[in-house]
Amino acid sequence: MNIASFFPKNIQLALKNNPPGKWIPDLPEGCIRLHCGYPAPVLVPVEEIKAAVCSLLELEHDLPLHYTGSPKILELKEQIIKRLEERGISVSEEELLITSGACQAVDLIARILLDKEAVVAIESPTYMEALEIFQNYTKLFISIPVDKHGLQTDVLEEILAERKRNGLAQPRFLYTIPTFQNPTGTTMTAERRQHVLELADKYNFLIVEDDAYGELFFNNNLPTLKAMDTMSRVLHVGSLSKIVAPGMRIGWIAGACEIIHACAWFKKDLNHPFAQAAMAVYLANTDFDEKLITLRDTYRSKCAVLLSALEQYLPESASWYVPEGGYFAWMKIPGVDTSEMLTQALAEGVSFIPGRYFFMDQSDGTEYLRLSFSYEDEKEIADGIRRLGRVVEASL
Amino acid sequence: MNIASFFPKNIQLALKNNPPGKWIPDLPEGCIRLHCGYPAPVLVPVEEIKAAVCSLLELEHDLPLHYTGSPKILELKEQIIKRLEERGISVSEEELLITSGACQAVDLIARILLDKEAVVAIESPTYMEALEIFQNYTKLFISIPVDKHGLQTDVLEEILAERKRNGLAQPRFLYTIPTFQNPTGTTMTAERRQHVLELADKYNFLIVEDDAYGELFFNNNLPTLKAMDTMSRVLHVGSLSKIVAPGMRIGWIAGACEIIHACAWFKKDLNHPFAQAAMAVYLANTDFDEKLITLRDTYRSKCAVLLSALEQYLPESASWYVPEGGYFAWMKIPGVDTSEMLTQALAEGVSFIPGRYFFMDQSDGTEYLRLSFSYEDEKEIADGIRRLGRVVEASL
Repeated sequence: MNIASFFPKNIQLALKNNPPGKWIPDLPEGCIRLHCGYPAPVLVPVEEIKAAVCSLLELEHDLPLHYTGSPKILELKEQIIKRLEERGISVSEEELLITSGACQAVDLIARILLDKEAVVAIESPTYMEALEIFQNYTKLFISIPVDKHGLQTDVLEEILAERKRNGLAQPRFLYTIPTFQNPTGTTMTAERRQHVLELADKYNFLIVEDDAYGELFFNNNLPTLKAMDTMSRVLHVGSLSKIVAPGMRIGWIAGACEIIHACAWFKKDLNHPFAQAAMAVYLANTDFDEKLITLRDTYRSKCAVLLSALEQYLPESASWYVPEGGYFAWMKIPGVDTSEMLTQALAEGVSFIPGRYFFMDQSDGTEYLRLSFSYEDEKEIADGIRRLGRVVEASL
Repeated sequence: MNIASFFPKNIQLALKNNPPGKWIPDLPEGCIRLHCGYPAPVLVPVEEIKAAVCSLLELEHDLPLHYTGSPKILELKEQIIKRLEERGISVSEEELLITSGACQAVDLIARILLDKEAVVAIESPTYMEALEIFQNYTKLFISIPVDKHGLQTDVLEEILAERKRNGLAQPRFLYTIPTFQNPTGTTMTAERRQHVLELADKYNFLIVEDDAYGELFFNNNLPTLKAMDTMSRVLHVGSLSKIVAPGMRIGWIAGACEIIHACAWFKKDLNHPFAQAAMAVYLANTDFDEKLITLRDTYRSKCAVLLSALEQYLPESASWYVPEGGYFAWMKIPGVDTSEMLTQALAEGVSFIPGRYFFMDQSDGTEYLRLSFSYEDEKEIADGIRRLGRVVEASL
């Protein structure tokens, strides 16, 4: 019996074009992990989460372990609404959906907005998992290049204008990570933010703003697209993964209630009531503004170590963007295929993600790589870059 | 701006036909809950889960709180494979996917197997959430009636044969809850199990076996369809929700590796690594066979209280199936619209789920209702049925 014959055509295509693979092979023992977008282990509030779980179960007994969970789930929603308010985003309860991390948020948005006729505008490069998700629904993409000031909105405008002249469909949405972008670490300027919102109005598309890193600025803090959005065109996707703990899987979508309502319908009870209630208790017991100061100080300092090591160990021909926040730095090494170089890097005991995975057309990314300064400690970061320097020298 | 205009046609249709609603309104204070399929509070292992979380975080620190989580996630898989083996189901790691409860399992199966041309065969009545999920993908259903011996496979055969004669598409899969069905509490006989497997082979369809209640037998234990499946046609959906705690959201799909691979692709990291690892620790520390004996004893006893109260308080015209396991009893009250009766029942302080929600054509279910004996204690169950008896008498 041919099981695959039961798959509808679109599923066969999604599976064919997207063979489940790994961006990085198994790591050798002792490898310095500059590939992974994990928070620093010392910043994960292990004791506090343990205390939150214990206090929740002592207080509410079996309640948080049933389907609908604890009333604390509503408190989590209120806490997130309050944090969004502090960032200039005003949403009601009906305009917010808690998700299992930003990944479920992006998946739900794709499910309700995309079909095989839909066009999606993406940044180039962009977050590889979002790219994978969108490709399950459509093959029609507009890739807009990112430079050190973020998405090139003038290029976006040219393309939209030309599509209009040619009677082509406009994107259903633009997926953007305007602040400390994954993978480039770049931030869209205030002018470009204004411009992209104007374009959305003029050409009638929605904007999915992935803001997973937005609170992790080193110095300057720009308003989110959602805070500037007067037309309810922005679906703001957020997450506690980068600022509390990814394993708790708490993310959200803030946007127009029609969107939230539709996402909730497809989400059904793909919830995690226990984790949500535990997180509500954790947040209630935490001075989050103070915690954010610690997070920013730690990542600022780690980033400085990375940049200084890059200056010291990388050859002249390599170049990179200087991140102003977030987890990542983006490097170009002209003439080097970073996928091939990864083998040597792992042999030297350092990892990164080859650039090609972040591009729709992978051949655009062969000379790039993403470095993460979030996970390893400062000594390891410096040592990792020293090892990387040797590998790059040998690859030139 | 009309946000809804951004939804593809199929999504507009799914939302239109399925207005998110509640099966039951808000309960009055002190209402006896015979509607909800929750485990008995005393059987939820609150202290043990708390201990598992503490021991996990003490042992592995931040590891379980990162994306990929703890190595214990693999142990959970092994533990579930071992339990399945004890039930005659032999699967490899590649044939098992851990999901966020059975609901995500059903949703993933629907995503990879259904499109708007797909026909789905369902039991009538059937689990309302599965019905809702399938309706997001297709409107083409074959409803096969259930009697006290489960799915009427002879009716299924007639329909399949006639569809073949008429050149109509056969179902892509049959969704069945063969053991202690939701909502009827009935169990498919061994003969019918054999028959349905033969039909799947003859007419080339898959079988989705939802086995959420299978371990909760009172006396007799029939083999699962998956255990009898020699052709890899059965996708076995299981869950720890009914036997440990629904709030932990641990379910699974066991089936052909092509299916598992495709489901995993669409699942991405819609996982809950922390809950999975905590559950692995809990299971490792638990004599599960002994726990199952306690569960069976408790629910057998609760069911006996329910049945005895039904005999005592319900009028002659009401009839019901006698459950041999699981959580539910299914009742018919000829001439009474149970949706209308619910208002009076809530006023009397007892809840149930009106039968219509379990049918594709809701008008087929007006005289039925589902009673759950799982959640309330024995005294409350008896008192609830006493109240229900009064309401039924008044409705006749």
